[in-house]
Amino acid sequence: MLNSADAAFLDSLPPHLLRPVAPADVEEPRGRWTGQGAAVAMPRTPEDVAQILRACASARVGVVPRAGGTGLVGGQLMPEGPAPLLLSMERMARIRAVHADEAVIEAEAGVILSDVHAAAEAVGRIFPLTLASQGSARIGGLLGTNAGGVNVLRYGNTRDLVLGVEAVLADGSILHGLKRLRKDNTGYDLRHLLIGSEGTLGIITAASLRLFPRPATEGAALLAVEGPEAALSLLALAEARLPGMISAFELIHRQGLDFLRETLPQVRQPFDVPPEWSVLIDLGLPHGIDPQEALVDLVEAAGALVQDGVIAQSGNQRAELWALRESIPLANRRIGAVSSHDIALPPSLFPAFIAEANAALARIDRFRINCFGHLGDGNLHYNVFPCPGSSRADHDHQREAVKTCVHDIVHRMGGSVSAEHGIGRLKVKDLERYAEPAKLAAMRAIKTALDPSGILNPGAVLR
Amino acid sequence: MLNSADAAFLDSLPPHLLRPVAPADVEEPRGRWTGQGAAVAMPRTPEDVAQILRACASARVGVVPRAGGTGLVGGQLMPEGPAPLLLSMERMARIRAVHADEAVIEAEAGVILSDVHAAAEAVGRIFPLTLASQGSARIGGLLGTNAGGVNVLRYGNTRDLVLGVEAVLADGSILHGLKRLRKDNTGYDLRHLLIGSEGTLGIITAASLRLFPRPATEGAALLAVEGPEAALSLLALAEARLPGMISAFELIHRQGLDFLRETLPQVRQPFDVPPEWSVLIDLGLPHGIDPQEALVDLVEAAGALVQDGVIAQSGNQRAELWALRESIPLANRRIGAVSSHDIALPPSLFPAFIAEANAALARIDRFRINCFGHLGDGNLHYNVFPCPGSSRADHDHQREAVKTCVHDIVHRMGGSVSAEHGIGRLKVKDLERYAEPAKLAAMRAIKTALDPSGILNPGAVLR
Repeated sequence: MLNSADAAFLDSLPPHLLRPVAPADVEEPRGRWTGQGAAVAMPRTPEDVAQILRACASARVGVVPRAGGTGLVGGQLMPEGPAPLLLSMERMARIRAVHADEAVIEAEAGVILSDVHAAAEAVGRIFPLTLASQGSARIGGLLGTNAGGVNVLRYGNTRDLVLGVEAVLADGSILHGLKRLRKDNTGYDLRHLLIGSEGTLGIITAASLRLFPRPATEGAALLAVEGPEAALSLLALAEARLPGMISAFELIHRQGLDFLRETLPQVRQPFDVPPEWSVLIDLGLPHGIDPQEALVDLVEAAGALVQDGVIAQSGNQRAELWALRESIPLANRRIGAVSSHDIALPPSLFPAFIAEANAALARIDRFRINCFGHLGDGNLHYNVFPCPGSSRADHDHQREAVKTCVHDIVHRMGGSVSAEHGIGRLKVKDLERYAEPAKLAAMRAIKTALDPSGILNPGAVLR
Repeated sequence: MLNSADAAFLDSLPPHLLRPVAPADVEEPRGRWTGQGAAVAMPRTPEDVAQILRACASARVGVVPRAGGTGLVGGQLMPEGPAPLLLSMERMARIRAVHADEAVIEAEAGVILSDVHAAAEAVGRIFPLTLASQGSARIGGLLGTNAGGVNVLRYGNTRDLVLGVEAVLADGSILHGLKRLRKDNTGYDLRHLLIGSEGTLGIITAASLRLFPRPATEGAALLAVEGPEAALSLLALAEARLPGMISAFELIHRQGLDFLRETLPQVRQPFDVPPEWSVLIDLGLPHGIDPQEALVDLVEAAGALVQDGVIAQSGNQRAELWALRESIPLANRRIGAVSSHDIALPPSLFPAFIAEANAALARIDRFRINCFGHLGDGNLHYNVFPCPGSSRADHDHQREAVKTCVHDIVHRMGGSVSAEHGIGRLKVKDLERYAEPAKLAAMRAIKTALDPSGILNPGAVLR
């Protein structure tokens, strides 16, 4: 059992590393619950982090790491148990180096994602990790949760963008792993073990990140399709014609467009009548291929697969199509979901999944379902909302049943119940329900081996 | 301390799973030393592997896994200690499924790499892992060592091509992780921990592997450049003009061409006078870009960077250029290296490294140095040979000094002393010398946690 970070413990740390807890430090991004903490530690260096962790290990006090605080599964918030120390990366927000010729940037855990984007652009390159919260999400949290986003199809998950990490382990030892190597087979890959472990195996303090060439030209189209099956056929066609040039392939359901009209009427929609299903396809192309031409050719080749659509004729129009896609989560929030699901499946199973999940939920109650997201990555958000005239609260008693219903189908089809958000504290029971015992046992053995006192983000991922 | 796999132990296993050890089971690919084993176990299923590992754990008998046996660092060969059981994947050689529409293939650990290539081609796709031993290397070993090869620049290391693994842990529990998901953030990434662990943390029995679109057209050129610095500039230019379309970028030194003329005169060389340095650039292009034109344009844009060269005008000519590149290791073997080094560096440091290492070795003795390989991945083979008139044996007493001299420089420059071959048993001391204590301690803690009896590939990676 851990101890609370009491006054005596706090006195053992240098005062310049501490500040009191502010309300923003313990806020859940959607306002759903509140975390707690005895104080906030603000290290400037990995050595500061090492000192803090050694003190915590010795006093058996839990540490909850915090970067941008945008996570949706509560990995950054501990609502109960002995008051932990909050470990904020706010002062470790330096870009340490930009190796333009090697396409590598070294950023500390507190650097905001959009600042990495800017630093990459300053040397004519891109850092492709792109998600709605990029103005506040920080590198430490993005790596801790192996964040996804809209460009995974082309560039991979966060872990695929990381060449090396600097991290502090529970005993205060420092891994100086900021390598800039594409190949390194010297022992176990601790980088990939730490990435996605949500601060439970070590604290990532900096990372060397891969940059990519900026595509010469970009283009986008919003295309109406008959359904998810047609969307998958269109994706296969696009990948065959434009291999490695599709930056994003996003599925949109009419429900999302309806929510937008209802809650954010200022967001421009290109269709007079919202199509039942549509896809936003985004291209990044080399010199010599014109994006509008490529999209026109694709639509022609697609024949009856594409029922209607618009091809962006300018950067502004492309930005408008993206604004529509990226406003959907906000519209969802304004409507208020009964339950949201961040699921991955083998892509070919999505049509069957959607049909089966819709039918299963209809047996529970009447709902509105907004199913949308990163079809190109096999990752959709399948979110369940009340019908007009009823509220979130009316369905409180069904929330658990709705979630279990959806997740059970996903699991049976070989899918994941957390594609890109992680486990945090919100999905610990899901992990216990769906992970096979051998995986859980191996995870527990690794956790005990690397954090024997259990001080690192206690209760997250495993309990 | 482990026990030998004696007669009583072997009697505890079903006879149909065992065969006697054949000489080929314990041969080092270059004939440098011999392994040992009491018997060969030949499982057909992961359950067979589980039964074998449980027996080994209970009797404290070591298990040395063996796939294609092509590894160059002795991970598959145990020359001393209590006689282990050899675990051969020869009977687990089934391609379980090809999901053509999802671009995924599920292959058992004993499948030979070229058979995966053929299965991918049969559905119009490619599996991009390509290396000289592909006709005998098997999936289990390729994953166990996180093999590299010539296409890492474009497609990544082996680990980047793997969506999921099925594996058996030391306690006989089975991880059924053959996922076909692009995104899955449900707990620690055991897949990446097992890949590259060389059979010391678990036995990989099958994997789901990513397939890729076959490029519409391909092309290659062999271009003479002034030196490694010019080669890097040419690479940067090529990446800017043809982003994501360069499949390989290989550096070749005159020494390799001289060795070819000396030992394999039948291999055609395009240059009358071998250039001091050259690069083999290979392109895979989408519809609409002609490879010859793209290479001519690149050479024109490169100006003085390219001094001479040939652009393949046909598939046959491209194959000839590749035959030249891929014959260099055989020529090296015929000459007989004093010491070979598989090193990675931040690419921009290669010119300085080569100058410094050449000068440092000249202080030890007169050598011929063949420095070649995957410059596009920041991975070169820096191999040291006797001068004419002296032999490998004449330098036996200097071998350790040569290796340490080269590796010390690599380490000081932030590089890796095993870029793509792994640690095996040959480089255990190098890992101890160059890995930082925190990394070694974490690796040991993980090894103890997952294999408390130390039965899995004892003495490999860690001792």
